[in-house]
Amino acid sequence: MIRYTTGLLVSLLILSASLCLAQSDRPEIKDDFMPSTLNQPGQEYPQVNSQGYARFRIVALEAQSVKVSLGGRDGTSLTQAPDSSWIGTTAGPLDEGFHYYHLTIDGGTFNDPGALNFYGSTRWESGIEIPAFDRDFYALKDVPHGRVQQILFLSKSTNTSRRAFVYTPPDYDRDQARRYPVLYLQHGWGEDETAWSNQGHANLIMDNLIAEGKITPFLIVMTYGMTNEIKFGGLRNFDIKPFQTVLVDELIPYIDDNFRTLSDQPHRAMAGLSMGGMETRRITLANLDKFSHIGLFSGGSISLDDVNNTPGLKEKVKLVFVSYGSRELERRGGGRGPFGGDPKENAEALKQAGINSAFYVSPNTAHEFLSWRRSLREFAQLLFRE
Amino acid sequence: MIRYTTGLLVSLLILSASLCLAQSDRPEIKDDFMPSTLNQPGQEYPQVNSQGYARFRIVALEAQSVKVSLGGRDGTSLTQAPDSSWIGTTAGPLDEGFHYYHLTIDGGTFNDPGALNFYGSTRWESGIEIPAFDRDFYALKDVPHGRVQQILFLSKSTNTSRRAFVYTPPDYDRDQARRYPVLYLQHGWGEDETAWSNQGHANLIMDNLIAEGKITPFLIVMTYGMTNEIKFGGLRNFDIKPFQTVLVDELIPYIDDNFRTLSDQPHRAMAGLSMGGMETRRITLANLDKFSHIGLFSGGSISLDDVNNTPGLKEKVKLVFVSYGSRELERRGGGRGPFGGDPKENAEALKQAGINSAFYVSPNTAHEFLSWRRSLREFAQLLFRE
Repeated sequence: MIRYTTGLLVSLLILSASLCLAQSDRPEIKDDFMPSTLNQPGQEYPQVNSQGYARFRIVALEAQSVKVSLGGRDGTSLTQAPDSSWIGTTAGPLDEGFHYYHLTIDGGTFNDPGALNFYGSTRWESGIEIPAFDRDFYALKDVPHGRVQQILFLSKSTNTSRRAFVYTPPDYDRDQARRYPVLYLQHGWGEDETAWSNQGHANLIMDNLIAEGKITPFLIVMTYGMTNEIKFGGLRNFDIKPFQTVLVDELIPYIDDNFRTLSDQPHRAMAGLSMGGMETRRITLANLDKFSHIGLFSGGSISLDDVNNTPGLKEKVKLVFVSYGSRELERRGGGRGPFGGDPKENAEALKQAGINSAFYVSPNTAHEFLSWRRSLREFAQLLFRE
Repeated sequence: MIRYTTGLLVSLLILSASLCLAQSDRPEIKDDFMPSTLNQPGQEYPQVNSQGYARFRIVALEAQSVKVSLGGRDGTSLTQAPDSSWIGTTAGPLDEGFHYYHLTIDGGTFNDPGALNFYGSTRWESGIEIPAFDRDFYALKDVPHGRVQQILFLSKSTNTSRRAFVYTPPDYDRDQARRYPVLYLQHGWGEDETAWSNQGHANLIMDNLIAEGKITPFLIVMTYGMTNEIKFGGLRNFDIKPFQTVLVDELIPYIDDNFRTLSDQPHRAMAGLSMGGMETRRITLANLDKFSHIGLFSGGSISLDDVNNTPGLKEKVKLVFVSYGSRELERRGGGRGPFGGDPKENAEALKQAGINSAFYVSPNTAHEFLSWRRSLREFAQLLFRE
């Protein structure tokens, strides 16, 4: 099991590094560049045009070389303009959605001073957003808004006060009698508990789905999932136990004690992206008395073998949701590879076996956050429906 | 009034640029450097020693020059070590507490990839912390923790959904019948609504004061105070009205509608640091029916003339609290300057006139966040005492 999941995650990390460039031939580049929506206040660069090209401008008059880690396997090298600033445009359009990036300036790794920062790859990286055709579902709109509550909970197993964020729906503080189901939602390798709110817009996705009456409102709990030796190294020695202890024995009781939750198994879900999907898979299958709904976003799948090897799964699990970005599946030649079988075939097999199983593919996205924003949107609509 | 406050703020900005170096003679530098507590996870640099010296290390092998904007008027120039990394130590110890800084690499402004980022000077800056002798009061301890809740509220006057953070005390969600007083707490110029939680540790200061039984628990509301033309330019055309409308007409009703507040004048306070103090002064004096407690942290004072020119002040205001960092007062030659008179003398005059007036000086700090963390600690203990 450990070797399997290690192979999976290493593959995901490699995939994620090179899949953000949609195409490399160069049509005419439209001159309608606008500042990225993720720029720091008042910053004109980086910019994005309507085709998805990104343009960068960095001021460092005496630099020898400035490169951006986006725009193909080798990134985008900037060149010095007449005003001595460094400017460059990606070789092709980028995929729609959110991309991490950084600068390499004279051999050092720095962030773009024009862009906001997002925690990924175990560092605060620059971020840029290519407007997606369906961006409305995670837009900030004039609808009732829930809250994102930062909590600090005591973890005896790690001897720390740990941080989590809890999304509460718009009416949570109005109807003091109502209790809510809970989704525990995990980030990927190198990210942290800020990812689903910052990069993922989980709160806005929820606000909009609730405003449209498309989901049963629930809480989302997001905490840090890298509790052991995987922290800054590889995943070779990955051990699920430290995080499982924090989540199951410490965080869940804290949440049920401090928020108005429905604390029984039918009303508790877990999902995660990439490494968080792997964590979700292992923790839920080992705790079927605690979780009824399972979401794996670009993070493996559950096969009929898993079902047969896990007593009680068929009876206790009310939903198995598996998703990928379309480019992840293309790259893998129809979905085979180190993922423990074709995830779509696995999903079909579960359905045939009478398990509520859903498979979703995010169009034209890779191992990146737009895949996971969409996955959350789809998953949320299937949760707590009975 | 406008000219007065403009002069004040410009002076504060100038002061804040050069006051973080405590002394410039060079005693023996102790070799007990440790990573700053504000470093990114796993990062060894920047480091701080027990005397308050800061040491920086930047990897940029082919750079021509690397400078850090801390450590005296001209900053600290790094030199290339045998391994080609750039290393340097400040010329003297820095003041205790939090300092913003950035790098200048080959003529460009970048952040230190080793440090966490904090919004100041209208950009996300690097931050470093020199451990203060009294750091215990803002430390993360094993005490009951309140929450920091991100809310989004509709502002018709600015046609935006605006963000605020609300600190709720540890027992807020336990005792559903209890209602709480509220402090509206503002950041300084170039900062935003994240400052008081991130740089200020306002939530931890409150948790600790509440655990020690030193204060009447209250909510703190923190929102963005730069709503008009002061946004990224100077303060010359500063107009209090846009922010006053957001705060008084939009945010306060939202908070009173969505949180369990005591919504009458005796239970509402406002305070702010630097520019936020100026905003506090103007908004409270113009809305004495809404605010009873006033806190100005390094942001002006209230004189007897103000009292005489403001009908009702003497009857309605239950506390005027004014504070400065000691180095601000030293620099100003005993407290005179563009601040509308000596703040300590003003505080004394108010006391003589029968107004509950307090004056606090933070030891050995300048126009920086340790002055304001301490100011909040002192102010909080005087609030809502009747």
